[in-house]
Amino acid sequence: MSSILVVGSVALDSVKTPFGEVEDVLGGSATYFSVAASFFSQVRVVAVVGTDFTEELGAPFKRHNIDTSGLVHSEGATFRWKGEYGFDLNEAHTLDTQLNVFESFKPDIPDSYKTSEYVFLGNIDPELQLQVLDQIDKPRVVACDTMNFWIDGKVDALKKTLSRVDILIINDGETRMLADEANLVRAAHKVRAMGPRILIVKRGEYGVLMFNEDSVFGAPAFPLEDVYDPTGAGDSFAGGFMGHLAQSEGLDDSILRRSIVYGSVMASFNVEAFSLNGLGRLTKTALDERFRQFKSLTHFEAL
Amino acid sequence: MSSILVVGSVALDSVKTPFGEVEDVLGGSATYFSVAASFFSQVRVVAVVGTDFTEELGAPFKRHNIDTSGLVHSEGATFRWKGEYGFDLNEAHTLDTQLNVFESFKPDIPDSYKTSEYVFLGNIDPELQLQVLDQIDKPRVVACDTMNFWIDGKVDALKKTLSRVDILIINDGETRMLADEANLVRAAHKVRAMGPRILIVKRGEYGVLMFNEDSVFGAPAFPLEDVYDPTGAGDSFAGGFMGHLAQSEGLDDSILRRSIVYGSVMASFNVEAFSLNGLGRLTKTALDERFRQFKSLTHFEAL
Repeated sequence: MSSILVVGSVALDSVKTPFGEVEDVLGGSATYFSVAASFFSQVRVVAVVGTDFTEELGAPFKRHNIDTSGLVHSEGATFRWKGEYGFDLNEAHTLDTQLNVFESFKPDIPDSYKTSEYVFLGNIDPELQLQVLDQIDKPRVVACDTMNFWIDGKVDALKKTLSRVDILIINDGETRMLADEANLVRAAHKVRAMGPRILIVKRGEYGVLMFNEDSVFGAPAFPLEDVYDPTGAGDSFAGGFMGHLAQSEGLDDSILRRSIVYGSVMASFNVEAFSLNGLGRLTKTALDERFRQFKSLTHFEAL
Repeated sequence: MSSILVVGSVALDSVKTPFGEVEDVLGGSATYFSVAASFFSQVRVVAVVGTDFTEELGAPFKRHNIDTSGLVHSEGATFRWKGEYGFDLNEAHTLDTQLNVFESFKPDIPDSYKTSEYVFLGNIDPELQLQVLDQIDKPRVVACDTMNFWIDGKVDALKKTLSRVDILIINDGETRMLADEANLVRAAHKVRAMGPRILIVKRGEYGVLMFNEDSVFGAPAFPLEDVYDPTGAGDSFAGGFMGHLAQSEGLDDSILRRSIVYGSVMASFNVEAFSLNGLGRLTKTALDERFRQFKSLTHFEAL
């Protein structure tokens, strides 16, 4: 069974949406990613938490058999994020960010992780993403995420990272910003020329577009009656995608497409509840059933 | 061959986008609709133009064998719309609207049109939409469009129209507004309860969702490198959709889905050039080829 290494944040989130409110609940990119990926593959996490991170908070990692040898407990408080969503649920309004122990995070890859075949670099400083890659032996597939903050502030380091990754997973605004091009298709070509053979563009409630060598794949997001909390949707998508990719062992177009659908399925379960609750209560049966519904959502026949 | 009756506007548009500018070119909902639908079915148009509407301006109708017996030439000037798009091309900024002869438009359905089996009520005053329906014998399928202006100002008349239509084609913001509900899936249920068995929600560059009795269908918009002018995309979509539907003679889910893809294909050709130029130069071969590309865009296989 292939293993996936993920490096990113483990956070305590306080989130308010029109449908409820939670305080200091488990969150962070590495958390959502690894729980989603754990449905398909063995996951190893590298992140940092503070002394306030109790065993109870970390229970979901244990429950999903995620290897936390790389989860460092540092003196200080865990990274905290506080945000709010309006009725359209498309955009988070950040109310407060406390980096705490995450501010001096230097990813140190345990020896037992160094032969990981699949690597996901969560949305962290591109210089740290490079340090991670320098510590890994010979990964088969490297995927990464980034954000406007790094495109704006550390574009040179980011471009070095991009030259070493196979798959980039970002949103449409970030794609346009990175390419400095308004048309998404042209922007995708320009971003792919920076390194990643495969570009996956997330478009929130509208779904995903994947660009690779010779094809474009488009998938809508699964339409849901109950969306309670979009936090972690992108990372759950990436986790489901990488998890299924690692399970399938290949980068064929058909495997990539199916992995994207599994990613979309995981994101859809994630937003149906606050924090990790959507993924936490998920069964393999429900997951497979929604994959089938996804097929029915998008299928049409030629004459 | 089934005939489609369309009632709507024929206009002279002046449009500016980052990629060019045109003045007083052929436009209007009935125009885009009928040219797109003409690739599949016989089309009959009811609209009004002024004395400034030259034979040359009307040439595309003739070229596409569209029946213009219902195109009234009134004393005065043709409806004029002037708009501008920014780089994101998603939203038109209206600079000027001159209703002119369209202001006193009373749709008078020629006898030869009254047995039309398929009817499309373009985005006009819902009271006029009702007058059209009163003049038609026994249509098999009635579809209609509307907009925020009528939802806001004439919701009672609009609800009467909706109770008599089979298919409603509107955008996502209008769906939410009509239902007074932020969640699109819930809003769709509420709008379908107003009458239309089938609701098609247009989401611009993100594609389309269709809601009917027992299924939801989602299709992305065809990703394009060159988008010059989005004017008429929605009406070209509706035309391709209704055209193929009338050609297929049925309302099965599989026919509806395929019709939506043909609608998306027509919209994609329309936005690749100003005014009717995209549809005007289109061949049946190019149309079928893009339908196949659309299949490849959305197809994935289960394990």
